[in-house]
Amino acid sequence: MSKSLRVDLNTDMGEGFGAYTMGDDDAILDVVTSANIACGFHAGDPEIMAQTFAMAKARNVAVGAHPGFPDLWGFGRRVMAFSPGQIERLVAYQIGAAQALSNYAAHPITHVKAHGALSNLTAQDPSVAAAVCRAVKAVDPELICLVMAVGDHAKIAQDMGLVTRAEIFADRAYTEQGHLQSRKEPGAIIHDPKLAAERVVRMIRGGGVETLSGKIFPCPVDSVCVHSDTPAAVEIARTIRELLVIEGIEVRNFV
Amino acid sequence: MSKSLRVDLNTDMGEGFGAYTMGDDDAILDVVTSANIACGFHAGDPEIMAQTFAMAKARNVAVGAHPGFPDLWGFGRRVMAFSPGQIERLVAYQIGAAQALSNYAAHPITHVKAHGALSNLTAQDPSVAAAVCRAVKAVDPELICLVMAVGDHAKIAQDMGLVTRAEIFADRAYTEQGHLQSRKEPGAIIHDPKLAAERVVRMIRGGGVETLSGKIFPCPVDSVCVHSDTPAAVEIARTIRELLVIEGIEVRNFV
Amino acid sequence: MSKSLRVDLNTDMGEGFGAYTMGDDDAILDVVTSANIACGFHAGDPEIMAQTFAMAKARNVAVGAHPGFPDLWGFGRRVMAFSPGQIERLVAYQIGAAQALSNYAAHPITHVKAHGALSNLTAQDPSVAAAVCRAVKAVDPELICLVMAVGDHAKIAQDMGLVTRAEIFADRAYTEQGHLQSRKEPGAIIHDPKLAAERVVRMIRGGGVETLSGKIFPCPVDSVCVHSDTPAAVEIARTIRELLVIEGIEVRNFV
Amino acid sequence: MSKSLRVDLNTDMGEGFGAYTMGDDDAILDVVTSANIACGFHAGDPEIMAQTFAMAKARNVAVGAHPGFPDLWGFGRRVMAFSPGQIERLVAYQIGAAQALSNYAAHPITHVKAHGALSNLTAQDPSVAAAVCRAVKAVDPELICLVMAVGDHAKIAQDMGLVTRAEIFADRAYTEQGHLQSRKEPGAIIHDPKLAAERVVRMIRGGGVETLSGKIFPCPVDSVCVHSDTPAAVEIARTIRELLVIEGIEVRNFV
Repeated sequence: MSKSLRVDLNTDMGEGFGAYTMGDDDAILDVVTSANIACGFHAGDPEIMAQTFAMAKARNVAVGAHPGFPDLWGFGRRVMAFSPGQIERLVAYQIGAAQALSNYAAHPITHVKAHGALSNLTAQDPSVAAAVCRAVKAVDPELICLVMAVGDHAKIAQDMGLVTRAEIFADRAYTEQGHLQSRKEPGAIIHDPKLAAERVVRMIRGGGVETLSGKIFPCPVDSVCVHSDTPAAVEIARTIRELLVIEGIEVRNFV
Repeated sequence: MSKSLRVDLNTDMGEGFGAYTMGDDDAILDVVTSANIACGFHAGDPEIMAQTFAMAKARNVAVGAHPGFPDLWGFGRRVMAFSPGQIERLVAYQIGAAQALSNYAAHPITHVKAHGALSNLTAQDPSVAAAVCRAVKAVDPELICLVMAVGDHAKIAQDMGLVTRAEIFADRAYTEQGHLQSRKEPGAIIHDPKLAAERVVRMIRGGGVETLSGKIFPCPVDSVCVHSDTPAAVEIARTIRELLVIEGIEVRNFV
Repeated sequence: MSKSLRVDLNTDMGEGFGAYTMGDDDAILDVVTSANIACGFHAGDPEIMAQTFAMAKARNVAVGAHPGFPDLWGFGRRVMAFSPGQIERLVAYQIGAAQALSNYAAHPITHVKAHGALSNLTAQDPSVAAAVCRAVKAVDPELICLVMAVGDHAKIAQDMGLVTRAEIFADRAYTEQGHLQSRKEPGAIIHDPKLAAERVVRMIRGGGVETLSGKIFPCPVDSVCVHSDTPAAVEIARTIRELLVIEGIEVRNFV
Repeated sequence: MSKSLRVDLNTDMGEGFGAYTMGDDDAILDVVTSANIACGFHAGDPEIMAQTFAMAKARNVAVGAHPGFPDLWGFGRRVMAFSPGQIERLVAYQIGAAQALSNYAAHPITHVKAHGALSNLTAQDPSVAAAVCRAVKAVDPELICLVMAVGDHAKIAQDMGLVTRAEIFADRAYTEQGHLQSRKEPGAIIHDPKLAAERVVRMIRGGGVETLSGKIFPCPVDSVCVHSDTPAAVEIARTIRELLVIEGIEVRNFV
């Protein structure tokens, strides 16, 4: 008899700033089981953080810090030349801010996931991945590192004694080596909700990411990252969740 | 036989930003027993915070969060129209950031003191004082509130179950009601190190602040605030400490 | 035979920041004849400014600088304690930035209108109104000051030799003294497009703002301010324009 | 009979922010003949800009805009991933702000020089140099481009019809190809005032930069860049000026 399957659905949230909004946080909270909350550097502010933690608590969605580069103008997507040590401190700062406001909302964070250009660098440069891990360890070693399913980040974290969970992307193609296909390449993004959902099921059942050639590159699959920044993204997320339920895969937070 | 006297000396520190420096943190650390560290909103950044917490640890100086308004340009001295709720969240954010970086430096914060315009508002507006206290309580009720010796802030904090310590200013004149004389009035600032030091001793022995008429307005005196932003300020601080030692008043942190 | 009537329709635009959008600039450009472009302090960035100036040029909509307080978090709506001299310099800075990017887009600005809390202060405090005017005069005395129809701002500007144009608000109630009714009072905002449009026509024909009692408080009416930040606001603006055309009132920029 | 020699001395100024100071602007103004004024992105604010332009006017020192990356924390020295088009707009913005505040101080800017990481990129990447030039051309084609003496920037500017002036650095070693020796290499910085001054004279007389082997790499030498951020830097600058006077080389702005 086969082991019952389960998976987490995570999304980035709380990405507004002041009078600005980004995405439909209210809609996506009905879909996901964990949320990565912006910490005020690339998006988010204390008001939005407090509100978002409270909204997540009300829907029983687990929360994590989502630190990024200090570049609101670039939404944290612009590479900035920070040293690993500087990254360590700026991630620590943001984790602390997220802890404070999640405690304020009586819904403490349980994980950390890097955002945007910082996240990309953790996949490309082990010294950056290590910097993020050291920040987690220094501030609260109980926090789970949510990392890309393929790459060095998980091992670096585990070697420091940290707990990791591995995420795959519902709407992104993977190379034969299990890395994200560059957004500049054709076919890098899956736009069709049904195709994305079926693919997610195959990846969870297959235990790995599906490459461009249709093979499964084996890796842990603890969580599926979905987006909320457009109505289409929310629709994809809903379709994935519905199919997971139909397929008997439990959708549950990884904590 | 009289009870032996003791007092804390506190100062604001870590008030640089990036390439900018402010004050002589190294010199003042030899004088004070507690330091209020800027948290990145009116001054300070993750690098400076980490360094300053480490420097304080090396000198065995206790540290606290020093939250202010999000106005680097105005160094937190410009009044901004925030609601009490907004102040609550922006103070909580900064306390969390300070906790993270003080943990990172293995020297956790033990108190919170408001900065600049925010501090002035806590003295003028009980709803602001209450907002700061609620932030402390939500994030970590063990943190000590360092408050002005005269005014409602201490009682507001104590009514919430928080621990308070009361500070007086070494170089500022007090009105007959025990409030700070406005800086716009003549005689508001004491510039002479010897006069300031003697005055501090009288206030500690007398158990209150010395008003313009020379009377003592009774209040708790747990800490004396000194400055480090000019060479003259550091000289005043040193002179105060020397006289306290001569007078047999123990200089020790209030924790 | 009566003199033919004309009026300008103005709106605030370019109020996004980085990845954030605000309002439907594309839709409102079909309605208005002049646009006030945010200058990067309370909203806007160099990319958005350049794009917005280019969009306005393509639709033949005149443009102006829309300076505000340096408070992106508060969208320039939070009062900040600046001295008149500081306001003079921060307005000058923003006018210069707007001149540069409007020249870059080959569509030079022709007017200046203050934003948010800064605008409110120009109505309440003549020293602030004078500061904004001095900035205009120092940077480019040919720029037109777009001011509230009732109040001291127009006279202060004219006394400095500046040209002014007076604006009324389509969707705001006026007191018997011709001032804006506080948004906190009931009836302060007119939500019905038809009522707003008919009211605008009465104010233009009547030569003044319509007060709560239905009287006309006489004042110049060179421009009507409409909003673009919600679909309902754009609908109101369209309805006003349509009725103006039907009523034979020419809708044309004031330059 | 030999042609009489002249040279400009330029320095970066106005690099404080709010309560923060950087360098001794007052001292260096007695030495230099032109000043590059920070424009609020990597340093500087409207108050400091206005003051610095006024100080320069009082000493008859010509002024220019000194645009940099929007990174106050990194003082504009951190590389940020901007596209050439984005650089074009952010440079245009800053030139406009500098024009406004220099007009405000009745001392209009006459040149533009890029700062920090942006300046380095103009030397390494012709598309960045071209972006800066296009910004100058769009905002005010009369402004002089102050560029590195060796490299493509001058030709790119001249091909657009812009006027250029070439600067050499008093305290930096040059490779055999006439480029700046990396600061990471030994001997990259000349610390001795006398050696720096004698070298400057040789470079002006020789008509090029002096390479590590002691050869002169020919290039135009219109201006010598000196620093003001430390007392030692001001001392070097003074020594250079004194030797230029002794040697009969006229120190005069390049406008």
